[in-house]
Amino acid sequence: MNNYKILINYDGTRYYGWEHQPDRDTIQGKIEAVLGRMCGESVEVIGAGRTDAGVHAKGMCANFHAQTDMDCTQIRDYLNRYLPEDIAVTDVRIASEQFHARYKAVGKTYRYTCFCGEIKPVFDRKYVNVLDFVPDIDAMKEAAAYMMGEHDYKSFCGNPKMKKSTVRIVDSITIEKKRGYIYMTYHGTGFLQNMVRIMTGTLLEVGRGKYPPDRVKDIMEAKQRSGAGPIAPACGLCLTEVEY
Amino acid sequence: MNNYKILINYDGTRYYGWEHQPDRDTIQGKIEAVLGRMCGESVEVIGAGRTDAGVHAKGMCANFHAQTDMDCTQIRDYLNRYLPEDIAVTDVRIASEQFHARYKAVGKTYRYTCFCGEIKPVFDRKYVNVLDFVPDIDAMKEAAAYMMGEHDYKSFCGNPKMKKSTVRIVDSITIEKKRGYIYMTYHGTGFLQNMVRIMTGTLLEVGRGKYPPDRVKDIMEAKQRSGAGPIAPACGLCLTEVEY
Repeated sequence: MNNYKILINYDGTRYYGWEHQPDRDTIQGKIEAVLGRMCGESVEVIGAGRTDAGVHAKGMCANFHAQTDMDCTQIRDYLNRYLPEDIAVTDVRIASEQFHARYKAVGKTYRYTCFCGEIKPVFDRKYVNVLDFVPDIDAMKEAAAYMMGEHDYKSFCGNPKMKKSTVRIVDSITIEKKRGYIYMTYHGTGFLQNMVRIMTGTLLEVGRGKYPPDRVKDIMEAKQRSGAGPIAPACGLCLTEVEY
Repeated sequence: MNNYKILINYDGTRYYGWEHQPDRDTIQGKIEAVLGRMCGESVEVIGAGRTDAGVHAKGMCANFHAQTDMDCTQIRDYLNRYLPEDIAVTDVRIASEQFHARYKAVGKTYRYTCFCGEIKPVFDRKYVNVLDFVPDIDAMKEAAAYMMGEHDYKSFCGNPKMKKSTVRIVDSITIEKKRGYIYMTYHGTGFLQNMVRIMTGTLLEVGRGKYPPDRVKDIMEAKQRSGAGPIAPACGLCLTEVEY
């Protein structure tokens, strides 16, 4: 019985998120189904995080314990043959017995992509949030500075029943504009449910001129979800790296 | 009444090609419907060419005559507001009265994209032909050399009832491989129905080792569709430029 570490790319458009749900298509559910077929018994896949419905990933990490005669390349190819076309396993390797994709993660990077150009994007339309305004990037950067560091991110937590600590560390938020696209990259030790999307929705309200940048400071101090901006659409978000 | 020249990007995945067909979704049909609504009367859109069902375009050119008070930017924005998300008009300008998108075209560029890497592509899967073999690019280039120049391309014509001349000039075919992707770029004065896809299908048979490169010379001389390779899937093809 080996502990396997895998990396996964997925287009989350048609899925109800990462986490297994009965009678609904989820990424975890699809991978567990193929592994179950491969091993002849049910296999539990542990993901680094639970991406929301519609969120994408390039480099989601997961692990599972399985007994098989196949080598890592054979497992990867088997998974890719039977997984749907919008999920691909890019790497399979044997990890130490202690490796746990969720508990051992020390950093995560998410990228949120907006489009504010004149001509709507056709070919990558499923992966961007198309805005109907051109945001003030400098104001967004000023606001983002208040979100960085070690803070209680309760105001950006989508789970109102969250009992555990809502303190997290967000090391960096970079915002770049290139040819009509706006790339917002968040790096931190971990993120609460919906946190990146609510932070993005809040920063976009600043970019739109609805909130002054320093209102973000008040929003964070209030520790109330109701004070923050709306949740940004899932389609623009992609988990791009998990560090161990 | 002005003659307008427009440029269009489209993801052809869910369309029955460019050309208007009753009761079927086509690119021409969608654009004519929006222009009809804009002008209050039916408008005929003339495309530079009739792309097949499932073929994409980045820079298809078309023209239409219309009477409107809107300026070019307003027409572009109106079209983009009412066209579906997989069709975008990137430019609208007033052309001379004589301009005709089909008859005045002097050159066209098509790009066909294959993928032969180890991990299936997830995010651009709708725009590539995923191969189950790694083609011999040098053999394909050798074969492509026979296809260049002024020739009778009858063997690569998908319309068996074609009455007009099947002589065309193909100036260049370039084949490049980059990180698992193979880009085949065709430039010529004009192309017959299905011609780029049948040329591609034939070159892929060479790349697979089924045909020696010089068989392409015989295929061309035979002037018989049955001698050439299969038609390559539409999803890999994109019209990328029309010259006037």
